[in-house]
Amino acid sequence: MSNPIPHQALRSFASNCYQAMGVNALAADLLADTLVQADLWGHQSHGVMRLFWYAARLQSGAMNGNAVPVEDGGFGAIATMDGQGGLGQVVAKAAMTKAIALSKTHGLGAVAVRNSGHFGTVMYFTRMAAQAGCVGFVSTNASPAMAPWGGMEKRVGNNPWSWAAPAGRYPPMVLDIANTAVARGKLYLAKQRNETIPDSWAIDAEGNATIDPAAGIAGTILPMAGHKGYGISTIMDMLSGVLTGSHFGNSVVGPYVPNGVSGVGHFVLAININACRPQSEFELDMERLIDQLKATKRQPNVAQIYYPGELEALSDLKLRRDGIDLPRDTADELRSKAKELGIFAPF
Amino acid sequence: MSNPIPHQALRSFASNCYQAMGVNALAADLLADTLVQADLWGHQSHGVMRLFWYAARLQSGAMNGNAVPVEDGGFGAIATMDGQGGLGQVVAKAAMTKAIALSKTHGLGAVAVRNSGHFGTVMYFTRMAAQAGCVGFVSTNASPAMAPWGGMEKRVGNNPWSWAAPAGRYPPMVLDIANTAVARGKLYLAKQRNETIPDSWAIDAEGNATIDPAAGIAGTILPMAGHKGYGISTIMDMLSGVLTGSHFGNSVVGPYVPNGVSGVGHFVLAININACRPQSEFELDMERLIDQLKATKRQPNVAQIYYPGELEALSDLKLRRDGIDLPRDTADELRSKAKELGIFAPF
Repeated sequence: MSNPIPHQALRSFASNCYQAMGVNALAADLLADTLVQADLWGHQSHGVMRLFWYAARLQSGAMNGNAVPVEDGGFGAIATMDGQGGLGQVVAKAAMTKAIALSKTHGLGAVAVRNSGHFGTVMYFTRMAAQAGCVGFVSTNASPAMAPWGGMEKRVGNNPWSWAAPAGRYPPMVLDIANTAVARGKLYLAKQRNETIPDSWAIDAEGNATIDPAAGIAGTILPMAGHKGYGISTIMDMLSGVLTGSHFGNSVVGPYVPNGVSGVGHFVLAININACRPQSEFELDMERLIDQLKATKRQPNVAQIYYPGELEALSDLKLRRDGIDLPRDTADELRSKAKELGIFAPF
Repeated sequence: MSNPIPHQALRSFASNCYQAMGVNALAADLLADTLVQADLWGHQSHGVMRLFWYAARLQSGAMNGNAVPVEDGGFGAIATMDGQGGLGQVVAKAAMTKAIALSKTHGLGAVAVRNSGHFGTVMYFTRMAAQAGCVGFVSTNASPAMAPWGGMEKRVGNNPWSWAAPAGRYPPMVLDIANTAVARGKLYLAKQRNETIPDSWAIDAEGNATIDPAAGIAGTILPMAGHKGYGISTIMDMLSGVLTGSHFGNSVVGPYVPNGVSGVGHFVLAININACRPQSEFELDMERLIDQLKATKRQPNVAQIYYPGELEALSDLKLRRDGIDLPRDTADELRSKAKELGIFAPF
């Protein structure tokens, strides 16, 4: 590990790198914030270690770092949006902003997004809804990561989805799920750290269990909860890919390859809490629900019960104060690649 | 097993039983159809074996078999509904009917339902949306069935949720998930059949693994996918219980006890497909997605890949033709309890 890096310095560094790659300042700042925020939440597999993963796609022109998403249809409380092959983070933020606005007029708001890209951590966008007095939902599809239940070929993405809601004196309740037994990024992190993986995470290309992250990356990650995870991921593709008129199934292109239009789609929903009941009453009941969960009699050796999203909030509090530790490999790679762009790394 | 019973005869029998308990014909027919439909789908744990589970609550007055749900608020595309402590099936059908109607006017429609009851199989109601040209979502909360992650007391329901969408020449794509490692009904079925259960399904009251379904029923069922299942179930309670202003957490009363207001809440959503893209195009792409899944190279010994909802559709086709086999215990119990009501069982 290097010395802890203040989150502000890491954010500026990341934004400078993207701007040096030709991304406009607004988009670069957003990209940087989503990566650093993932690190702050303790999701290092989705943090700045991914900084240069987008570089090859930007350079090849497969992804347009300056595209502006366009609202181009819909009806009533639903808008459709063409992401113009841009950065998923820019598109998803625009879509959630629109969904929240629709929910203020219609009680509910949704945006069906096509032709977007990989957007990083999905809870970054549902949190926007929670901060705006809404319950938020976002689903996305993703490049093939697992086989249909009983299959041996990658045809189904991990297709992450998230719900978030405000929770009174507590930080928001947030769910952020990928439907694989493990997030793909965790295999890359294990590989980078030269660690083995549990044999329940993935099968190799011949369908055998493996503890080698590289073999798992080359093979097929297993769904969470067996056939249920397969079912959930397929439904998220229906919502994110088919309903939006975007790519779906094995035609979605991920951030790990330099070429090819991504075709990622998202379904973005905001529910205006005040349309259901006064938000103040909702939040009081959220506190009661959380209090009840946390007061549950614990199993031996369990120090505390957490509600969904609490670990991320605690990590955020700590790392904003103490700084972010990067694995040495990540720090070295970022330093060296930034140097090629003429950017000095503050670590 | 008894001889297979024609589904029509089983449905009439079930409706007659409920009418003999004082439930009006319309509600009795609906209740009967939901149970028989679960049997037809191959979900015997949610089928007519539950016929008399509602009897004690109807007789005690804890549940009003003739209550009429009331729309009493909301805003724009969201309505709120008071289930009046009635039958969950009646309430959920009314709520989905309203959500579909709202989606035709607003593109999206949602109903936040409080003061309802156990409604049986959740996909019965999302299927209504798929049949009406919508993508449907329904969540419900339920009486405590599992502990928060790391806990030892039941504080979180299995809180089922479902998505459904039309799929062109294929039967609808349907997801129907309870967040426990296994549906509670499967423990009752195993107990009734004197079978053991896998040790991953539940812990006993002292927190130990068990293969005895009775010990599992007395103890705590485990969540699916570990902490992810706990997170999903808590979020479904946020939506179904807190957002609707209904009961939540350990204050929800289930169908297995004769007394106490249920307080179950539901969140019901319909998305008008035509608000996103022409339904005909959507359905063509659903066929392509399903074709792609089913054409995946299979693992050894796997005869076919199924899409979510396909097994239920195949079972429905077969059992509508061949009739429904009931376990002997179930048939005996139904016959004897019906006799007390003066109803003759056609099996």
